[in-house]
Amino acid sequence: MHIGPDGDESIERAVRDGGGEPAALDDADALVWLDWRRDRFPALPSSVRWVQLPSAGVETWMPAIDRDGPLFTSAGGVYAVPVAEHALGLLLAGVRGLATYARATSWVERDDRTLEGSTVAIVGAGGIGRALIGMLAPHDVDVIAVTRRGRPVAGAARTLAADGLADVWSQADHFVVAAPATGATRHLVGAEQLRAMPDHGWIVNVARGSLIDTDALVAALQAGEIGGAALDVTDPEPLPDGHPLWTAPNALITPHVANPPGAMMRHLAERVRENVRRFAAGEDLLAPIDPDAGY
Amino acid sequence: MHIGPDGDESIERAVRDGGGEPAALDDADALVWLDWRRDRFPALPSSVRWVQLPSAGVETWMPAIDRDGPLFTSAGGVYAVPVAEHALGLLLAGVRGLATYARATSWVERDDRTLEGSTVAIVGAGGIGRALIGMLAPHDVDVIAVTRRGRPVAGAARTLAADGLADVWSQADHFVVAAPATGATRHLVGAEQLRAMPDHGWIVNVARGSLIDTDALVAALQAGEIGGAALDVTDPEPLPDGHPLWTAPNALITPHVANPPGAMMRHLAERVRENVRRFAAGEDLLAPIDPDAGY
Repeated sequence: MHIGPDGDESIERAVRDGGGEPAALDDADALVWLDWRRDRFPALPSSVRWVQLPSAGVETWMPAIDRDGPLFTSAGGVYAVPVAEHALGLLLAGVRGLATYARATSWVERDDRTLEGSTVAIVGAGGIGRALIGMLAPHDVDVIAVTRRGRPVAGAARTLAADGLADVWSQADHFVVAAPATGATRHLVGAEQLRAMPDHGWIVNVARGSLIDTDALVAALQAGEIGGAALDVTDPEPLPDGHPLWTAPNALITPHVANPPGAMMRHLAERVRENVRRFAAGEDLLAPIDPDAGY
Repeated sequence: MHIGPDGDESIERAVRDGGGEPAALDDADALVWLDWRRDRFPALPSSVRWVQLPSAGVETWMPAIDRDGPLFTSAGGVYAVPVAEHALGLLLAGVRGLATYARATSWVERDDRTLEGSTVAIVGAGGIGRALIGMLAPHDVDVIAVTRRGRPVAGAARTLAADGLADVWSQADHFVVAAPATGATRHLVGAEQLRAMPDHGWIVNVARGSLIDTDALVAALQAGEIGGAALDVTDPEPLPDGHPLWTAPNALITPHVANPPGAMMRHLAERVRENVRRFAAGEDLLAPIDPDAGY
């Protein structure tokens, strides 16, 4: 196993714990790649049969993934818990007005809503969405899950298929976007969807900025069409200085930190250990990337 | 039943649903009092045998409660869910740096901690604390509960009695204060306790401002002795303009809104209905106030 572009002690330990041996790239039959970006990605010797990527969202990697080349695995599902935790934090912060209070310098009470008693739609109920549904279970909340095929999701009051998505925006109080970024999900949330949401509704995005039409969101926030937006990902990203989302009173921006570096390495090491073990045993690897699906 | 100082439609409905009849004070054998303050509280005719107060914390009412007079009941436990929900929101906001991000106008990533994997001490595991323990259950968190007598609390990894409280400050990552305000709990958290906490530790207060020594807290925040403080209650309260807590980068203040008015009336109406039913049936009422205990 080669670990690149730079070594990492916890990942080396995970490789060994899984039964592998760190090696130079030319001697390796597999590669664990720890850089989010593709620009330092090496030409692969033909001995490499498997590449483990560090991210769960892999849309920028798709051009590098060849149906006839090595198997690529993503970190899909690995970061579900920290990301879902951040999503819950953003959702509560939104509903409870915490961004407004954080900016206040005077004691001004408001009659905030509670999460209790509300309906929350989770658009894209993969690993993150399912972890979030678990975290919402002790709250008195109805969850509507939206998945590609609409197969029932445990813990959700209802599950809709992606082709029934148009209905969801008027049926929930709040919305958490956790779908992969593909051609089909670009601008999933635009002017029309924002207009359909209740005017107290918060939208949380912990997936990819491209899923929301930023200009339409800014307009909806300024018009008071929705309660607010709490975004860990933006489009463009990073969000440039001076962008209206920085100062909109009903917006809360976190700089793509739902999965902070410390938590990231901890969780990635667990996945590397398990996939190295499976690779050595000839078993199916976790989170193989399907070049056709795009994730 | 008399409803004072002013009527309220939802409470009148609750009285009727419980089997009671709204009446003038002089004709009433019980009083539902909807004002947080005592200054408009009337002299009670001797026919009044029961007074339902609207708040869960009743320390300011103690001088008005006479062992030989009518039974007073608090709203203890009624607001546990909205207050616990707010406490969880403040805890996540603290750990995830949301107050800092809310004030930012530039994309600056930090390596925030996660709630996952941490130990949370809940000081005062009454209704609010127990509701919060339930909300923490799906998170990978160890809970240390502190109760007066140290009786085991469901869902807590450990329970300490109040006389073992001195040990807790160094044994948890984060602290949620949810104890009643009594003589014994004043300045429960002072300079010594803050020094014992880990320097990444957040303290959340959803109980009463007097439980924390504000000056000691400000000093600890300025010295970086703790991660931060997220406070729904303060001492003094309201927190005056210009107070250092408004602008401390590691403080988040919400203006006593853990139980927002809309949620408050919804939950109080449920309690009034049940206590009216019990009163009519001669059963024990929920949340009787013990003049000796002070809550």
